[in-house]
Amino acid sequence: MISRTARITKNVHLGKGSTVEDFVVLGKSSVPNRQKAKPLRIGSGSYLRCGTVIYAGTTIGNHFVTGDYAKIRENNHIGDDVSIGSNTIVERDSIIGDDVSIHSGCFIPEYTTIEDSVWMGPCVVITNVLHPPCPYFKKENLHERPACLTGPTVKRGAVIGAAAIILPGTTIGENSLVGAGSLVIHDVPRDAVVVGSPAKVVGKTKGLICPPGFYARGEVYSWRR
Amino acid sequence: MISRTARITKNVHLGKGSTVEDFVVLGKSSVPNRQKAKPLRIGSGSYLRCGTVIYAGTTIGNHFVTGDYAKIRENNHIGDDVSIGSNTIVERDSIIGDDVSIHSGCFIPEYTTIEDSVWMGPCVVITNVLHPPCPYFKKENLHERPACLTGPTVKRGAVIGAAAIILPGTTIGENSLVGAGSLVIHDVPRDAVVVGSPAKVVGKTKGLICPPGFYARGEVYSWRR
Amino acid sequence: MISRTARITKNVHLGKGSTVEDFVVLGKSSVPNRQKAKPLRIGSGSYLRCGTVIYAGTTIGNHFVTGDYAKIRENNHIGDDVSIGSNTIVERDSIIGDDVSIHSGCFIPEYTTIEDSVWMGPCVVITNVLHPPCPYFKKENLHERPACLTGPTVKRGAVIGAAAIILPGTTIGENSLVGAGSLVIHDVPRDAVVVGSPAKVVGKTKGLICPPGFYARGEVYSWRR
Repeated sequence: MISRTARITKNVHLGKGSTVEDFVVLGKSSVPNRQKAKPLRIGSGSYLRCGTVIYAGTTIGNHFVTGDYAKIRENNHIGDDVSIGSNTIVERDSIIGDDVSIHSGCFIPEYTTIEDSVWMGPCVVITNVLHPPCPYFKKENLHERPACLTGPTVKRGAVIGAAAIILPGTTIGENSLVGAGSLVIHDVPRDAVVVGSPAKVVGKTKGLICPPGFYARGEVYSWRR
Repeated sequence: MISRTARITKNVHLGKGSTVEDFVVLGKSSVPNRQKAKPLRIGSGSYLRCGTVIYAGTTIGNHFVTGDYAKIRENNHIGDDVSIGSNTIVERDSIIGDDVSIHSGCFIPEYTTIEDSVWMGPCVVITNVLHPPCPYFKKENLHERPACLTGPTVKRGAVIGAAAIILPGTTIGENSLVGAGSLVIHDVPRDAVVVGSPAKVVGKTKGLICPPGFYARGEVYSWRR
Repeated sequence: MISRTARITKNVHLGKGSTVEDFVVLGKSSVPNRQKAKPLRIGSGSYLRCGTVIYAGTTIGNHFVTGDYAKIRENNHIGDDVSIGSNTIVERDSIIGDDVSIHSGCFIPEYTTIEDSVWMGPCVVITNVLHPPCPYFKKENLHERPACLTGPTVKRGAVIGAAAIILPGTTIGENSLVGAGSLVIHDVPRDAVVVGSPAKVVGKTKGLICPPGFYARGEVYSWRR
């Protein structure tokens, strides 16, 4: 079902069985009066909630879901079974794998890599520039990657708690857990649990305890392996 | 006055004297192609600003006010004289009392209880899952409350400062004050002032000083009693 | 180009060469049924992205740019060459100079002063009330400035990193740098670098190092002088 109030330009390829709710905007360019917009491709079985905005030049897999007013800019590559929450902003030129869930109110900057099966809680903020607004990171160089940018990267299976802040150049290790509200200023090792401001390693995800006892020690997050 | 650009489904009961601005969406279901949406009831004298989205199955009292692009999901019970700020997201299955003000950009998760006369500043983030995305908290169990979730609860008269983060399972005590930017990891006692990351008790609300002298020591927040 | 889905009231004066995208709302009043709305003036060459909302009574210079769903309330004075990012909220009665860039998801409260050439990263939260919701700061006194409010002020050329939180009554000094995720509880001296929660001075902007070597020590941020 495609709402009649949605605004979908000709450069949009939307897969079968998709739902597009009211006031969704698909395929717009980031620059006014651009002569020919790049295609926007979205796979089948997608479900785009109210006011979602997705720009031209992005490619998205199947079963894509957005919350109300999610915003996804140009030149992103997004896999299958991805969910982007309400209000969340994904800037341009990022890569998001399969089976990724990014909750509401997050900010994902340019050139971010998010691998498969990552989960982010609400209001996570990722950053990418050490000294903003450095001229080496200007909009005029829209498709040229600054030499000083190598990240940020969130590795496969990592879980980032609500309202965590990830500083530039850091890598969040595979299957690690970043506690809610943490400020991550160094790389997070794989399988590590980090918490605090600045975030420090406090244990391993395998050592986590499930207080109500649904999972034995060492089995928390086993559902992700 | 109801804007002609607002989208209001048949299951919506909107009280007299309400204002509905442009691009507001009322009564939509959280699942596509749902056969019969539950009612959405909103009391009289409501004022819903641009782009507000309120889902089917929620019940709201009189004199309800929203900021632009506020989002309220299904199965919430919200009292009278409540204000939900711009961009703020209230997830499903929460209870909000009377005379509650939640400022802009907040995130209120599922199963939250907010008692009467609570005030929250902008960009407060409340969380509810210890080990997200635990399978015991899946969307498939939409109306079944996970056994491990007992909170979060914000008690009557509490004030939560801007951008505070409330961790799962904590209770914010009656008439307490959580300082802006605090990370709350333990319960906050009633009448306490807590600040910091993690938040610690630093005093009582009755000991607060009003620097310009409008209120004597001990009388700050007396307007709320 | 003005989208036909934009909602623009008669009190709006929009300069030449402006682009207004879908579902933008310009010139609405903050109070329903107000008899005569104040003018909203926006300069030439503006570019207002989807769903931007700007209220009556605000004055904005030339080359104004907004991200999707930016919100700007009444009685603000905003200079030339200003950019307000997606989702960002600028409340009423604030002053923003020329050449200011406020990124996505920020919250700028009432009575804020932001001088020329300030840059703010995503999700910065500025606050203005020591003991909210103090009755001396009520909506009923909409155009009367509370005696206890003298700030917040962000001085010329300051850079505020992502997700920083600025507490009431503080002044961010000229050309200073507030690190991402900092909680600023005291004034920040000019040219200082502050980081942490609470933020402390850790150096001078002139002492910053550019790791990839594009700028010599002491020359980082020289592009802003």
